[in-house]
Amino acid sequence: MKLAFVTGSANKLKEAREILAPIVIEQLALEVPELQGEPEEIARAKVHVAYQQARVDLFVEDTSLHCQALKGLPGPYVKHFIGKLGAEGLWQILSAFPERRAVARTVVGFVIRGKVGIAAGEVSGTIVAPRGTSAFGFDPIFQPEGEKRTYAEMSAAEKNSISHRRKALEMLRQALEAHHG
Amino acid sequence: MKLAFVTGSANKLKEAREILAPIVIEQLALEVPELQGEPEEIARAKVHVAYQQARVDLFVEDTSLHCQALKGLPGPYVKHFIGKLGAEGLWQILSAFPERRAVARTVVGFVIRGKVGIAAGEVSGTIVAPRGTSAFGFDPIFQPEGEKRTYAEMSAAEKNSISHRRKALEMLRQALEAHHG
Repeated sequence: MKLAFVTGSANKLKEAREILAPIVIEQLALEVPELQGEPEEIARAKVHVAYQQARVDLFVEDTSLHCQALKGLPGPYVKHFIGKLGAEGLWQILSAFPERRAVARTVVGFVIRGKVGIAAGEVSGTIVAPRGTSAFGFDPIFQPEGEKRTYAEMSAAEKNSISHRRKALEMLRQALEAHHG
Repeated sequence: MKLAFVTGSANKLKEAREILAPIVIEQLALEVPELQGEPEEIARAKVHVAYQQARVDLFVEDTSLHCQALKGLPGPYVKHFIGKLGAEGLWQILSAFPERRAVARTVVGFVIRGKVGIAAGEVSGTIVAPRGTSAFGFDPIFQPEGEKRTYAEMSAAEKNSISHRRKALEMLRQALEAHHG
Protein backbone atom coordinates (compact mmCIF):
# COMPACT_ATOMS: atom_id res chain seq x y z
CA MET A 1 0.00 0.00 0.00
CA LYS A 2 1.17 3.52 -0.62
CA LEU A 3 -0.11 7.02 -0.11
CA ALA A 4 1.15 10.53 -0.89
CA PHE A 5 1.64 13.05 1.94
CA VAL A 6 1.35 16.67 0.87
CA THR A 7 3.73 18.51 3.18
CA GLY A 8 6.81 20.68 3.11
CA SER A 9 7.88 19.58 6.59
CA ALA A 10 10.70 17.03 6.80
CA ASN A 11 9.84 16.40 10.47
CA LYS A 12 6.18 15.65 9.75
CA LEU A 13 7.16 13.39 6.87
CA LYS A 14 9.61 11.44 9.04
CA GLU A 15 7.04 10.92 11.76
CA ALA A 16 4.30 9.92 9.32
CA ARG A 17 6.62 7.33 7.75
CA GLU A 18 7.54 5.88 11.15
CA ILE A 19 3.94 5.81 12.33
CA LEU A 20 2.37 4.42 9.16
CA ALA A 21 5.04 1.83 8.27
CA PRO A 22 4.92 -0.50 6.38
CA ILE A 23 2.61 1.68 4.28
CA VAL A 24 4.82 3.55 1.81
CA ILE A 25 4.51 7.32 2.20
CA GLU A 26 5.65 9.44 -0.73
CA GLN A 27 6.22 13.15 -0.23
CA LEU A 28 4.27 15.35 -2.59
CA ALA A 29 5.42 18.96 -2.78
CA LEU A 30 2.45 21.07 -3.85
CA GLU A 31 1.63 24.72 -3.28
CA VAL A 32 -1.43 24.32 -1.09
CA PRO A 33 -2.67 27.52 0.53
CA GLU A 34 -3.70 27.39 4.19
CA LEU A 35 -6.83 29.14 5.33
CA GLN A 36 -7.46 30.90 8.60
CA GLY A 37 -10.17 29.17 10.62
CA GLU A 38 -10.78 25.96 12.53
CA PRO A 39 -8.36 23.04 11.97
CA GLU A 40 -11.01 20.86 10.29
CA GLU A 41 -11.86 23.60 7.77
CA ILE A 42 -8.17 24.17 7.09
CA ALA A 43 -7.51 20.45 6.51
CA ARG A 44 -10.63 20.09 4.37
CA ALA A 45 -9.71 23.05 2.15
CA LYS A 46 -6.11 21.84 1.82
CA VAL A 47 -7.03 18.28 0.88
CA HIS A 48 -9.55 19.57 -1.65
CA VAL A 49 -7.03 21.79 -3.42
CA ALA A 50 -4.28 19.14 -3.22
CA TYR A 51 -6.51 16.47 -4.75
CA GLN A 52 -7.63 18.81 -7.54
CA GLN A 53 -3.97 19.25 -8.43
CA ALA A 54 -2.63 15.74 -7.97
CA ARG A 55 -5.57 13.34 -8.50
CA VAL A 56 -3.90 10.54 -6.52
CA ASP A 57 -4.65 9.03 -3.11
CA LEU A 58 -3.13 11.49 -0.64
CA PHE A 59 -3.38 13.17 2.72
CA VAL A 60 -2.60 16.55 4.28
CA GLU A 61 -2.47 17.53 7.92
CA ASP A 62 -2.99 20.53 10.13
CA THR A 63 -1.42 20.53 13.58
CA SER A 64 -2.54 22.99 16.21
CA LEU A 65 -1.82 23.82 19.84
CA HIS A 66 -4.76 24.99 21.89
CA CYS A 67 -3.80 26.74 25.12
CA GLN A 68 -6.48 26.98 27.76
CA ALA A 69 -5.25 30.39 29.00
CA LEU A 70 -5.51 31.74 25.44
CA LYS A 71 -8.99 30.31 24.84
CA GLY A 72 -7.68 27.80 22.34
CA LEU A 73 -5.05 29.99 20.67
CA PRO A 74 -2.57 30.01 19.03
CA GLY A 75 -4.43 27.00 17.59
CA PRO A 76 -3.58 26.46 13.91
CA TYR A 77 -1.42 29.62 13.94
CA VAL A 78 1.08 27.89 16.22
CA LYS A 79 3.50 27.33 13.32
CA HIS A 80 3.80 31.09 12.81
CA PHE A 81 4.49 31.57 16.53
CA ILE A 82 7.07 28.81 16.57
CA GLY A 83 8.55 30.06 13.30
CA LYS A 84 8.95 33.63 14.55
CA LEU A 85 9.46 33.20 18.30
CA GLY A 86 10.62 29.62 18.69
CA ALA A 87 9.20 27.26 21.31
CA GLU A 88 11.02 29.41 23.89
CA GLY A 89 9.02 32.48 22.82
CA LEU A 90 5.72 30.64 23.02
CA TRP A 91 6.71 29.46 26.50
CA GLN A 92 7.49 33.08 27.42
CA ILE A 93 3.93 34.09 26.46
CA LEU A 94 2.36 31.24 28.42
CA SER A 95 4.60 31.69 31.43
CA ALA A 96 2.74 34.92 32.21
CA PHE A 97 -0.44 32.89 32.84
CA PRO A 98 -1.02 30.55 35.79
CA GLU A 99 -3.11 28.24 33.57
CA ARG A 100 -0.72 26.16 31.44
CA ARG A 101 -2.91 23.35 30.17
CA ALA A 102 -3.03 22.81 26.41
CA VAL A 103 -4.21 20.33 23.82
CA ALA A 104 -2.02 19.27 20.90
CA ARG A 105 -4.06 18.29 17.90
CA THR A 106 -3.53 16.89 14.42
CA VAL A 107 -6.31 16.88 11.87
CA VAL A 108 -5.68 14.80 8.77
CA GLY A 109 -7.59 15.33 5.55
CA PHE A 110 -7.32 12.42 3.15
CA VAL A 111 -8.61 11.18 -0.18
CA ILE A 112 -8.76 7.43 -0.76
CA ARG A 113 -10.10 6.25 -4.09
CA GLY A 114 -11.68 9.64 -4.69
CA LYS A 115 -13.44 9.83 -1.32
CA VAL A 116 -12.58 12.60 1.15
CA GLY A 117 -12.25 11.80 4.85
CA ILE A 118 -11.11 13.57 8.01
CA ALA A 119 -9.22 12.00 10.93
CA ALA A 120 -8.16 13.70 14.14
CA GLY A 121 -6.04 12.92 17.16
CA GLU A 122 -5.36 14.92 20.28
CA VAL A 123 -3.28 14.78 23.43
CA SER A 124 -3.82 16.85 26.57
CA GLY A 125 -0.80 18.23 28.33
CA THR A 126 0.93 21.20 29.89
CA ILE A 127 3.13 23.96 28.47
CA VAL A 128 6.45 23.98 30.31
CA ALA A 129 9.84 25.71 30.04
CA PRO A 130 11.77 24.18 27.10
CA ARG A 131 13.44 20.82 27.81
CA GLY A 132 14.92 18.18 25.52
CA THR A 133 16.98 17.92 22.40
CA SER A 134 14.41 17.73 19.60
CA ALA A 135 13.71 21.10 18.04
CA PHE A 136 10.56 20.05 16.16
CA GLY A 137 7.77 22.58 16.63
CA PHE A 138 6.41 22.81 20.15
CA ASP A 139 7.96 19.48 21.27
CA PRO A 140 10.35 21.09 23.80
CA ILE A 141 7.50 22.87 25.66
CA PHE A 142 4.72 20.25 25.51
CA GLN A 143 4.53 17.70 28.31
CA PRO A 144 1.74 15.17 27.77
CA GLU A 145 -0.58 14.45 30.70
CA GLY A 146 0.78 11.67 32.92
CA GLU A 147 4.32 12.10 31.55
CA LYS A 148 7.32 13.62 33.28
CA ARG A 149 9.05 14.39 29.98
CA THR A 150 8.30 16.73 27.11
CA TYR A 151 7.93 15.31 23.61
CA ALA A 152 11.46 16.60 22.96
CA GLU A 153 12.87 14.46 25.76
CA MET A 154 11.43 11.25 24.32
CA SER A 155 12.91 9.07 21.63
CA ALA A 156 11.18 9.30 18.25
CA ALA A 157 9.64 5.86 18.87
CA GLU A 158 8.32 6.90 22.28
CA LYS A 159 6.79 10.12 21.02
CA ASN A 160 5.33 8.38 17.98
CA SER A 161 3.65 5.75 20.17
CA ILE A 162 1.57 8.30 22.08
CA SER A 163 1.44 11.54 20.09
CA HIS A 164 -1.48 13.53 18.69
CA ARG A 165 -0.09 12.81 15.23
CA ARG A 166 -0.01 9.06 16.00
CA LYS A 167 -3.67 9.10 16.99
CA ALA A 168 -4.75 10.92 13.84
CA LEU A 169 -2.62 8.74 11.57
CA GLU A 170 -3.96 5.55 13.20
CA MET A 171 -7.43 6.63 12.09
CA LEU A 172 -6.05 7.23 8.62
CA ARG A 173 -4.49 3.75 8.63
CA GLN A 174 -7.81 2.19 9.57
CA ALA A 175 -9.61 4.07 6.78
CA LEU A 176 -6.95 2.94 4.33
CA GLU A 177 -7.11 -0.70 5.41
CA ALA A 178 -10.91 -0.66 5.21
CA HIS A 179 -10.71 0.49 1.59
CA HIS A 180 -7.96 -1.86 0.57
CA GLY A 181 -9.33 -4.84 2.48
CA MET B 1 -18.59 57.57 -7.62
CA LYS B 2 -19.33 54.36 -5.86
CA LEU B 3 -17.48 51.23 -4.82
CA ALA B 4 -18.38 47.96 -3.09
CA PHE B 5 -16.62 46.97 0.16
CA VAL B 6 -16.50 43.24 0.79
CA THR B 7 -16.62 42.96 4.57
CA GLY B 8 -18.69 41.46 7.33
CA SER B 9 -17.54 44.08 9.85
CA ALA B 10 -19.99 46.88 10.65
CA ASN B 11 -17.15 48.85 12.29
CA LYS B 12 -14.88 48.64 9.25
CA LEU B 13 -17.78 49.61 6.99
CA LYS B 14 -18.64 52.65 9.11
CA GLU B 15 -15.04 53.86 9.12
CA ALA B 16 -14.60 53.28 5.39
CA ARG B 17 -17.76 55.31 4.69
CA GLU B 18 -16.61 58.18 6.91
CA ILE B 19 -13.10 58.18 5.43
CA LEU B 20 -14.07 57.83 1.78
CA ALA B 21 -17.07 60.21 1.76
CA PRO B 22 -18.51 61.47 -0.58
CA ILE B 23 -17.70 58.27 -2.48
CA VAL B 24 -20.63 55.93 -1.96
CA ILE B 25 -19.56 52.66 -0.31
CA GLU B 26 -21.91 49.72 -0.66
CA GLN B 27 -21.47 46.70 1.58
CA LEU B 28 -21.09 43.43 -0.27
CA ALA B 29 -21.54 40.31 1.83
CA LEU B 30 -19.58 37.51 0.16
CA GLU B 31 -18.04 34.36 1.57
CA VAL B 32 -14.38 35.15 0.98
CA PRO B 33 -11.92 32.76 2.64
CA GLU B 34 -8.89 34.26 4.37
CA LEU B 35 -5.48 32.69 3.93
CA GLN B 36 -2.70 32.39 6.44
CA GLY B 37 0.35 34.37 5.39
CA GLU B 38 1.50 37.94 4.92
CA PRO B 39 -1.15 40.71 4.85
CA GLU B 40 -0.49 41.52 1.16
CA GLU B 41 -0.98 37.89 0.12
CA ILE B 42 -4.14 37.67 2.19
CA ALA B 43 -5.59 40.84 0.65
CA ARG B 44 -4.57 39.78 -2.85
CA ALA B 45 -6.19 36.35 -2.52
CA LYS B 46 -9.35 37.87 -1.02
CA VAL B 47 -9.78 40.50 -3.70
CA HIS B 48 -9.19 37.89 -6.41
CA VAL B 49 -11.90 35.56 -5.08
CA ALA B 50 -14.30 38.44 -4.38
CA TYR B 51 -13.94 39.83 -7.89
CA GLN B 52 -14.42 36.40 -9.45
CA GLN B 53 -17.74 36.21 -7.60
CA ALA B 54 -19.03 39.76 -7.95
CA ARG B 55 -17.47 41.23 -11.12
CA VAL B 56 -17.96 44.81 -9.95
CA ASP B 57 -15.50 47.47 -8.76
CA LEU B 58 -14.78 46.55 -5.17
CA PHE B 59 -12.26 46.41 -2.36
CA VAL B 60 -11.37 44.18 0.55
CA GLU B 61 -9.07 44.84 3.47
CA ASP B 62 -6.84 43.00 5.89
CA THR B 63 -5.92 44.70 9.14
CA SER B 64 -3.04 43.43 11.24
CA LEU B 65 -1.24 44.33 14.44
CA HIS B 66 2.50 43.68 14.48
CA CYS B 67 4.02 43.62 17.96
CA GLN B 68 7.76 44.10 18.17
CA ALA B 69 8.09 41.76 21.18
CA LEU B 70 6.31 39.03 19.23
CA LYS B 71 8.41 39.52 16.07
CA GLY B 72 5.45 40.91 14.16
CA LEU B 73 2.75 38.67 15.58
CA PRO B 74 -0.17 38.34 16.03
CA GLY B 75 -0.10 40.13 12.65
CA PRO B 76 -3.13 39.20 10.52
CA TYR B 77 -4.28 36.73 13.20
CA VAL B 78 -5.07 39.62 15.53
CA LYS B 79 -8.80 39.28 14.85
CA HIS B 80 -8.75 35.76 16.29
CA PHE B 81 -6.91 36.99 19.38
CA ILE B 82 -9.33 39.89 19.85
CA GLY B 83 -12.29 37.61 19.12
CA LYS B 84 -11.29 35.01 21.70
CA LEU B 85 -9.43 37.05 24.32
CA GLY B 86 -10.63 40.60 23.78
CA ALA B 87 -8.29 43.59 23.65
CA GLU B 88 -7.77 43.04 27.40
CA GLY B 89 -6.41 39.53 26.77
CA LEU B 90 -4.03 40.74 24.10
CA TRP B 91 -2.82 43.42 26.51
CA GLN B 92 -2.29 40.69 29.13
CA ILE B 93 0.02 38.82 26.73
CA LEU B 94 2.00 41.96 25.85
CA SER B 95 2.20 43.16 29.43
CA ALA B 96 4.63 40.32 30.15
CA PHE B 97 7.15 41.90 27.76
CA PRO B 98 9.06 45.14 28.38
CA GLU B 99 8.94 45.93 24.65
CA ARG B 100 5.46 47.28 23.82
CA ARG B 101 5.92 48.92 20.44
CA ALA B 102 3.60 47.80 17.65
CA VAL B 103 2.53 48.75 14.14
CA ALA B 104 -1.13 48.81 13.11
CA ARG B 105 -1.56 48.11 9.43
CA THR B 106 -4.33 47.98 6.87
CA VAL B 107 -3.77 46.49 3.45
CA VAL B 108 -6.50 47.15 0.90
CA GLY B 109 -6.93 45.02 -2.20
CA PHE B 110 -9.06 46.64 -4.86
CA VAL B 111 -10.33 46.17 -8.38
CA ILE B 112 -11.15 49.25 -10.43
CA ARG B 113 -12.35 48.69 -13.98
CA GLY B 114 -10.96 45.16 -13.91
CA LYS B 115 -7.51 46.14 -12.67
CA VAL B 116 -6.22 44.82 -9.34
CA GLY B 117 -4.31 47.14 -7.00
CA ILE B 118 -2.96 47.07 -3.47
CA ALA B 119 -2.86 49.98 -1.02
CA ALA B 120 -1.44 49.99 2.48
CA GLY B 121 -1.33 52.28 5.48
CA GLU B 122 0.39 51.91 8.81
CA VAL B 123 0.71 53.69 12.13
CA SER B 124 3.38 53.07 14.76
CA GLY B 125 2.37 53.06 18.38
CA THR B 126 2.44 51.32 21.73
CA ILE B 127 0.31 48.60 23.30
CA VAL B 128 -1.12 49.88 26.58
CA ALA B 129 -3.63 48.75 29.22
CA PRO B 130 -7.16 49.19 27.79
CA ARG B 131 -8.55 52.74 27.89
CA GLY B 132 -11.50 54.37 26.19
CA THR B 133 -15.07 53.62 25.28
CA SER B 134 -14.84 52.20 21.76
CA ALA B 135 -14.74 48.42 21.69
CA PHE B 136 -13.62 48.09 18.06
CA GLY B 137 -10.79 45.58 17.71
CA PHE B 138 -7.53 46.65 19.30
CA ASP B 139 -8.56 50.34 19.60
CA PRO B 140 -8.57 50.32 23.45
CA ILE B 141 -4.97 49.07 23.67
CA PHE B 142 -3.32 50.92 20.76
CA GLN B 143 -1.84 54.35 21.41
CA PRO B 144 -0.42 55.94 18.27
CA GLU B 145 3.06 57.46 18.49
CA GLY B 146 2.96 61.10 19.64
CA GLU B 147 -0.55 60.69 21.10
CA LYS B 148 -1.57 60.53 24.74
CA ARG B 149 -4.81 58.72 23.94
CA THR B 150 -5.65 55.29 22.54
CA TYR B 151 -7.75 55.05 19.39
CA ALA B 152 -10.66 54.16 21.68
CA GLU B 153 -10.36 57.47 23.53
CA MET B 154 -10.64 59.51 20.33
CA SER B 155 -13.79 60.56 18.53
CA ALA B 156 -14.50 58.69 15.31
CA ALA B 157 -13.47 61.77 13.34
CA GLU B 158 -10.18 62.08 15.21
CA LYS B 159 -9.27 58.40 14.78
CA ASN B 160 -10.29 58.47 11.14
CA SER B 161 -8.07 61.48 10.44
CA ILE B 162 -4.88 59.68 11.51
CA SER B 163 -5.50 55.92 11.46
CA HIS B 164 -3.80 53.10 9.57
CA ARG B 165 -7.11 52.51 7.82
CA ARG B 166 -7.29 56.18 6.80
CA LYS B 167 -3.85 56.01 5.22
CA ALA B 168 -4.68 52.89 3.22
CA LEU B 169 -8.06 54.22 2.10
CA GLU B 170 -6.54 57.54 1.03
CA MET B 171 -4.36 55.57 -1.39
CA LEU B 172 -7.48 53.81 -2.61
CA ARG B 173 -9.22 57.15 -3.09
CA GLN B 174 -6.32 58.42 -5.19
CA ALA B 175 -6.36 55.30 -7.35
CA LEU B 176 -10.10 55.69 -7.81
CA GLU B 177 -9.88 59.36 -8.72
CA ALA B 178 -7.06 58.65 -11.17
CA HIS B 179 -9.26 56.12 -12.98
CA HIS B 180 -12.38 58.23 -12.96
CA GLY B 181 -10.59 61.46 -13.81
